[in-house]
Amino acid sequence: MVFKLAIMGKPKAWILTIGNELLIGRIVNTNASWLARKLTFLGFSVERIIVTPDEPAEVAEEIRRALSRDDVKVVITTGGLGPTYDDRTLEAVARAINRPLRLNEQALQWVRQKYESGGMQMTKEREKMAYLPEGAEPIRNPVGTAPGSLVAAGEALIASLPGVPAEMQAMFEELMPRLKQLAPPLEVIDCGFIVVGVPESSLAPYVEEAERKNPGCYVKSHPKGHEIRGPVLEIRVLASARTRDEARELALRALEVVKGGARSLGGEITEEGCQE
Amino acid sequence: MVFKLAIMGKPKAWILTIGNELLIGRIVNTNASWLARKLTFLGFSVERIIVTPDEPAEVAEEIRRALSRDDVKVVITTGGLGPTYDDRTLEAVARAINRPLRLNEQALQWVRQKYESGGMQMTKEREKMAYLPEGAEPIRNPVGTAPGSLVAAGEALIASLPGVPAEMQAMFEELMPRLKQLAPPLEVIDCGFIVVGVPESSLAPYVEEAERKNPGCYVKSHPKGHEIRGPVLEIRVLASARTRDEARELALRALEVVKGGARSLGGEITEEGCQE
Repeated sequence: MVFKLAIMGKPKAWILTIGNELLIGRIVNTNASWLARKLTFLGFSVERIIVTPDEPAEVAEEIRRALSRDDVKVVITTGGLGPTYDDRTLEAVARAINRPLRLNEQALQWVRQKYESGGMQMTKEREKMAYLPEGAEPIRNPVGTAPGSLVAAGEALIASLPGVPAEMQAMFEELMPRLKQLAPPLEVIDCGFIVVGVPESSLAPYVEEAERKNPGCYVKSHPKGHEIRGPVLEIRVLASARTRDEARELALRALEVVKGGARSLGGEITEEGCQE
Repeated sequence: MVFKLAIMGKPKAWILTIGNELLIGRIVNTNASWLARKLTFLGFSVERIIVTPDEPAEVAEEIRRALSRDDVKVVITTGGLGPTYDDRTLEAVARAINRPLRLNEQALQWVRQKYESGGMQMTKEREKMAYLPEGAEPIRNPVGTAPGSLVAAGEALIASLPGVPAEMQAMFEELMPRLKQLAPPLEVIDCGFIVVGVPESSLAPYVEEAERKNPGCYVKSHPKGHEIRGPVLEIRVLASARTRDEARELALRALEVVKGGARSLGGEITEEGCQE
């Protein structure tokens, strides 16, 4: 049952990172990998990471697609909450769930306080940041100015965070208690090692066997060297179970299968370790 | 007309990066940003970057979605070409375009030569890498072992490259002549500067004006400091035109609008420069 939950029943999450700067390759999407790591260790299965242009119709399309899958419990958007003309993420969220944008009094108060504390007046660009989808809860931004938005859509939550990494990360921490309520009772661990001297194609049957024999594990080999002239593989196992000890035991059992195969093929094992 | 092409008529590209290691946040998606940069400077407009699991049904769904938009001319996939059980990208490509996988003689010869040169025999895991969608052309892998695949689907090309960055980059270069045939006659330039001392919300109307008055430009402000306590903004313009000189002139004209606004608000301009 625990194992079944670990494989079949993990609630799914989608990550939408919004912004043309990602699509023109000016910046690397570190927000997506940071969020994916956090959600994975909370027990969610991240099913998509999508980068869209700053176009509400495109963003709304992806949100609707996520919500149309009934195992998706969390949609996190990053970017597009600021004061410029192309910051239109909350318009997209509102459109995707067929609600209007409304001036949120709490959000407005936060924004006003921030500017007033710096001796600045409100303008329409600043006020814009306080418009949230109707029924949304504002998320306090402890680092910058734009509030986030948290809104329920059926059984899923849509959380909208800024694109500036320090703001996004701080606000994700504020969201944690809410996400934990949706997360399964699972502990997740990521363990692995390096194999030197065995081509990926030779180790492949053992990797497959390790995953097949250990439900609740996801096993993968990552080539780091040259398949023929100097093979180096990183083997990783992501294991999920009811307790940390069970998860660790499960991961090590799966790794043992690959390790046995690697040794029988003359491989050398180094850098063993776990991350949790 | 040139401007119209620059805004309306750029052929679109989708990037699909495949692999659970991205969805669990173990690695940052540098392949996506590298490809996005290359495609942007070739004159394509990258409309989506999508990370999917190693599941052929999920990958095929995204490829079909890309192909269903008739302005999408290029779909590039990375990952899932190797010898392990979860390397199933070409199965997904074949499924998306309703073709079977076939053993490709040229690809098989390349793979066999590589292993034989290292004194290794063929196995079913190694042979697997030579199965391509029917009608696909194999792409030589000058760095590693798995060949890529290039297949036409209507007016679009689907290119499948490995996930190992060095292999992916080398094979993209081999694809360049084919991509250039689909690319528009446009030169693209990316120029910008830093503004110190002006909040993003104050500069917003000038950013909007710069884009509105300069068709063919995409103008964006990126907050780097603190909106209220110490604002620092990076302003970027991506401009496209028939010649490099025109593109540069266009970019500088758009930047001038923002610069004028920034100076009128007491901002200091530094680090001006272009990338092409």
